Amino acid sequence: MPRHDGRAANELRSLKLTRGYASAAAGSVLVEWGQTTVLCTASLSNETPPWLAGKGRGWVTAEYNMLPGSTSPRKARKPDGRSTEIQRLIGRSLRAGVDLAALGERTLTVDCDVLRADGGTRTASITGGWVALRDAIATIRNEDGQLLFPEGDVVGPGKPLIGSVAAVSVGLVRDEAALDLDYPEDSTAQVDMNVVATGTGDLIEVQGGGEGTTFSRAQLNAMLDLAIEGIAQITDLQNGAA
Amino acid sequence: MPRHDGRAANELRSLKLTRGYASAAAGSVLVEWGQTTVLCTASLSNETPPWLAGKGRGWVTAEYNMLPGSTSPRKARKPDGRSTEIQRLIGRSLRAGVDLAALGERTLTVDCDVLRADGGTRTASITGGWVALRDAIATIRNEDGQLLFPEGDVVGPGKPLIGSVAAVSVGLVRDEAALDLDYPEDSTAQVDMNVVATGTGDLIEVQGGGEGTTFSRAQLNAMLDLAIEGIAQITDLQNGAA
Amino acid sequence: MPRHDGRAANELRSLKLTRGYASAAAGSVLVEWGQTTVLCTASLSNETPPWLAGKGRGWVTAEYNMLPGSTSPRKARKPDGRSTEIQRLIGRSLRAGVDLAALGERTLTVDCDVLRADGGTRTASITGGWVALRDAIATIRNEDGQLLFPEGDVVGPGKPLIGSVAAVSVGLVRDEAALDLDYPEDSTAQVDMNVVATGTGDLIEVQGGGEGTTFSRAQLNAMLDLAIEGIAQITDLQNGAA
Amino acid sequence: MPRHDGRAANELRSLKLTRGYASAAAGSVLVEWGQTTVLCTASLSNETPPWLAGKGRGWVTAEYNMLPGSTSPRKARKPDGRSTEIQRLIGRSLRAGVDLAALGERTLTVDCDVLRADGGTRTASITGGWVALRDAIATIRNEDGQLLFPEGDVVGPGKPLIGSVAAVSVGLVRDEAALDLDYPEDSTAQVDMNVVATGTGDLIEVQGGGEGTTFSRAQLNAMLDLAIEGIAQITDLQNGAA
Amino acid sequence: MPRHDGRAANELRSLKLTRGYASAAAGSVLVEWGQTTVLCTASLSNETPPWLAGKGRGWVTAEYNMLPGSTSPRKARKPDGRSTEIQRLIGRSLRAGVDLAALGERTLTVDCDVLRADGGTRTASITGGWVALRDAIATIRNEDGQLLFPEGDVVGPGKPLIGSVAAVSVGLVRDEAALDLDYPEDSTAQVDMNVVATGTGDLIEVQGGGEGTTFSRAQLNAMLDLAIEGIAQITDLQNGAA
Amino acid sequence: MPRHDGRAANELRSLKLTRGYASAAAGSVLVEWGQTTVLCTASLSNETPPWLAGKGRGWVTAEYNMLPGSTSPRKARKPDGRSTEIQRLIGRSLRAGVDLAALGERTLTVDCDVLRADGGTRTASITGGWVALRDAIATIRNEDGQLLFPEGDVVGPGKPLIGSVAAVSVGLVRDEAALDLDYPEDSTAQVDMNVVATGTGDLIEVQGGGEGTTFSRAQLNAMLDLAIEGIAQITDLQNGAA
Repeated sequence: MPRHDGRAANELRSLKLTRGYASAAAGSVLVEWGQTTVLCTASLSNETPPWLAGKGRGWVTAEYNMLPGSTSPRKARKPDGRSTEIQRLIGRSLRAGVDLAALGERTLTVDCDVLRADGGTRTASITGGWVALRDAIATIRNEDGQLLFPEGDVVGPGKPLIGSVAAVSVGLVRDEAALDLDYPEDSTAQVDMNVVATGTGDLIEVQGGGEGTTFSRAQLNAMLDLAIEGIAQITDLQNGAA
Repeated sequence: MPRHDGRAANELRSLKLTRGYASAAAGSVLVEWGQTTVLCTASLSNETPPWLAGKGRGWVTAEYNMLPGSTSPRKARKPDGRSTEIQRLIGRSLRAGVDLAALGERTLTVDCDVLRADGGTRTASITGGWVALRDAIATIRNEDGQLLFPEGDVVGPGKPLIGSVAAVSVGLVRDEAALDLDYPEDSTAQVDMNVVATGTGDLIEVQGGGEGTTFSRAQLNAMLDLAIEGIAQITDLQNGAA
Repeated sequence: MPRHDGRAANELRSLKLTRGYASAAAGSVLVEWGQTTVLCTASLSNETPPWLAGKGRGWVTAEYNMLPGSTSPRKARKPDGRSTEIQRLIGRSLRAGVDLAALGERTLTVDCDVLRADGGTRTASITGGWVALRDAIATIRNEDGQLLFPEGDVVGPGKPLIGSVAAVSVGLVRDEAALDLDYPEDSTAQVDMNVVATGTGDLIEVQGGGEGTTFSRAQLNAMLDLAIEGIAQITDLQNGAA
Repeated sequence: MPRHDGRAANELRSLKLTRGYASAAAGSVLVEWGQTTVLCTASLSNETPPWLAGKGRGWVTAEYNMLPGSTSPRKARKPDGRSTEIQRLIGRSLRAGVDLAALGERTLTVDCDVLRADGGTRTASITGGWVALRDAIATIRNEDGQLLFPEGDVVGPGKPLIGSVAAVSVGLVRDEAALDLDYPEDSTAQVDMNVVATGTGDLIEVQGGGEGTTFSRAQLNAMLDLAIEGIAQITDLQNGAA
Repeated sequence: MPRHDGRAANELRSLKLTRGYASAAAGSVLVEWGQTTVLCTASLSNETPPWLAGKGRGWVTAEYNMLPGSTSPRKARKPDGRSTEIQRLIGRSLRAGVDLAALGERTLTVDCDVLRADGGTRTASITGGWVALRDAIATIRNEDGQLLFPEGDVVGPGKPLIGSVAAVSVGLVRDEAALDLDYPEDSTAQVDMNVVATGTGDLIEVQGGGEGTTFSRAQLNAMLDLAIEGIAQITDLQNGAA
Repeated sequence: MPRHDGRAANELRSLKLTRGYASAAAGSVLVEWGQTTVLCTASLSNETPPWLAGKGRGWVTAEYNMLPGSTSPRKARKPDGRSTEIQRLIGRSLRAGVDLAALGERTLTVDCDVLRADGGTRTASITGGWVALRDAIATIRNEDGQLLFPEGDVVGPGKPLIGSVAAVSVGLVRDEAALDLDYPEDSTAQVDMNVVATGTGDLIEVQGGGEGTTFSRAQLNAMLDLAIEGIAQITDLQNGAA
């Protein structure tokens, strides 16, 4: 199956994560994934939502937004069901990697703003958002001004992060499973699926649906195989991001 | 694994579909599924959304809403990300069973209003919504006032409905897969998954996620097995609904 | 004057009140009044609106909503001046039957959702809403978990309910006064009037207006006579509701 | 019954109508009624609402608004159920005096903005709004620029106005009926009622309700007697307004 | 340069300030400036915005609104970028004349509602708003009910008002600078500029822009000369307002 | 006067304009101005706003938005008076450089999204927005697909662009005029002023105001001198942008 850009079925597009791009936020990552660009920032607040007040736990939430000029024709700035659905997925996925009790009574808000959209914006948001989250947690200080979780000591038992979280899309294109669809593939795919998993390959979320078609268990399995393989590579890039 | 209400792992709650409950709408079904009650109505309009104008195709869209008194404490009437996410799933799922070209330039709006919520409201909405849709299509008349797709002749090649669509929830409760979670199970499940499929067992949409935990491929497969089995029974109930 | 459905001028449509229909709410009543169906739920909260804080009194408020499929063509879900006007009438009418000091610092919210609309939805809402309110009050418990106002001991001096509240519509159809208009009558009536009164026949609210016509004092009196007579019968049904 | 300002039970507050106050609008009237001041403007448009397009009839609609500084404490500028209810009453009342077919395919929007609020703002709006409407109709020109309904020739058979429309409040204060309540009376009245009628004494709308109390048929009749008497005087002021 | 209404280039339109027009508000001024009429009210509250809580300082804010009938065609009641921009200018300008610490923890809200619009509504709002503000401050009482800043003792060191604030428009009409544009001039001016200054001639805000044209430093200076001269006259009127 | 970052009073921060950053939009420029980063995109549509329909002219409009993570604490995504005011300034400023008749019936929407905010975001938006606009115009094609205004032939008589537009801030810091304030200077400046001008030094818009202080004509002139000098340098950078 030749893909329109020459990639193999199990081949990711180029992926680059630039940390610290938006220096006002506690954590920030510019994700350049093929022609898709997403700016993920993680802002830290010492307050929690009202319904968590006094429970000794923190919260992680996400917002997703496409900038008007990220696509053509221009996307109007207005509330949008698709964005709502996507930001709920991002938030759930990131929370799966966080120990909210170890985080303490703090809120981390991960904003994912799409600068250029060429497919895979939600998986780029989760992948980059996790790195921004990790960097934001490394800036938390106690009342004496000392870092509570210095960089490199953020993940693990008793730490705010349980493990890494990454995501990738897979799909069924001309009856064959393919990894990491770009926009031309995505818009013609028979099935579009997003898989979120940990760095150790455990599943966090699976979302897939036919676009006017149905799919079989065997096709589902072929797509999941590709996704798990891709997420392993993405995890390496997250860990090595400059 | 004894379930709190005595059901077997692969056992559905009682499910009753009452057609024609809200007689002003072209199609309407009251879904009573365990303690969950959803009123699904399908309204027919001879207009299409602006972006489909003149393309010779129709549209199916859905809205989902929980009545304030359907749950305790009372749910305020206000826009809500969860409802947005659910109604997008309902709309996509129902469209997967519709031949929009055979429908012609018409819009069917399926409203799913939850009267009592005890888990599984989104799968009840899809399951009942499909029956309401089928009944609404049977009321379409041509310019001479004759029925275009008389009841019993709505599904099949060249007809507006490709096949039936049904949905069920599955989950991982105390490490075991279980079918059709009610609210007490759903709120303590490790994984919650919704599966939408055709009456012939082809997959339309799979959505599952861990609630603060992760899951394995084997667990995913066990849940899918239960779901496919349950949907076959639900399809029979859809076909036999009075 | 033969009415289109054969009723006498002073004859109500059939009216059935089913209590406990939506079991999550503290009180709930399904009102089936001719072809009109309204679900009334009363939800109880131990908070009051901010402007009542610390005043030792409670509050009763109402919301009214027509489900999209309750009428044809479909009614869009959006704020609507008519609904605002109606829910204010429902709230004022129900409060007229409540001793807010005896209720204590609690809020009762009565939601009236119209499942099928065939005229008289606002009077059905008041009539059913009062029964839901009565049942909700019977669930109030003190800090020790004991019922403060057990069922059957809710109405009277020092109790939260002063007396019963019911409502009915009357109108002028082809120059004659008629009781309890259905939609075909309502949409052609010269005058449309809603009367709210207590079970002892005292007036709570009178609202009537010509639809492009005017009316005389004599006609107003004829309509009021019918309304008072009808409300007496409705009160009996409220008291005997299963 | 001595009233707090020395008026007799059947005595109106001073009422002054100043025409042409806001010269940009087709019709405008400043209503100074006791300490209540309302600016009514009637704007004319050659379009109708979409649902009336091509039906050869016009429309009259009203908007009601209290300026923030019209009352103390300041009233925030935001949508408000009370205003919605009042503007619907104003619109219905004014339409009762208009022959929409004779008006032709035009819309008249009557804006009632309260500059000072001291009770009776809705009846001031209807009373002044009708005069503004009359003046706006006198500015309608045909395609050749000639006046279609010159001032003084606006009311009567085949003309846009059927007759005059005026309104007044009445109430039950310390068990006695009183005409034209100001704010101190209104806020302590047992019953508050608004009556809209034509200049010939026919009823257009009657709206009355107890404020935590009920009322009898005899009390209703006493209030209606006062209202009819007051409206006759108000009609004279409308006809003579400078 | 003959102006269309015969004024000299440096001549103001007639300007009348009527204090106490809306008696419920702490301060109120009706501004009649040529054919432009603006009602300015200043409401006093003993609360501050949340972000100022406990800082020992007060706040002054402004809202600007055109009534629908103030212009033709009618202006719809809806949020509007122009109004937002204008009310921010009014608020900033008035705050420049206030010592917020001397004001204490209070909020003054200045509402500027345009009854008739004929150019210069924002400068009328600032000019009248300052007088309303001054009158509202003169009503502030301490806990014993005594006036803190009696009328005539409101301005000066340690008092809430630093000095007076007034505004006027200038523009470039047919290549010549002109003072106080009315609507016909404003809508054809090459440049439109608003100048806010103190009674002693110090600049508070300068806002000017070409309408499809540009302007030179020399033209800017000519306009500023006229504005400063006009503001001196307006200041005298503010001080002498009845 | 030593500035906190060592610049001279008339010295700009480093300014870099990167064209083509967001390739889906017709024109796009990443503006990096000191620590401020703004992404400007210009989207092209062949429709005009309804009020321009059929008039043979085009329109240019702008939207301004700060991303939540562009500042600390995080800025919530919600409508905001400051943004409204700024985007109106951007739109007016850019239109001053456009011949709307030569543009034809097209709309150019310039979106300015702030990725990092360190002062001067509105002047960066105007400066970068003009370059994005210029690039977008160079992509306009006629019905045969040929470029109407090829790159390099966009500005001049009969072309859509009259000339270049650029902007810079100036202010009064510790009583001295300074060019191009960053956030630390801006937040402590006595006066903050934005100047928009053409590449030939003609003024388009001047907006300046004291922050709790006033300023003199001489100070105004000193600031304008610096601004004009700075805009000349910025114009050179616009013309040479890669």
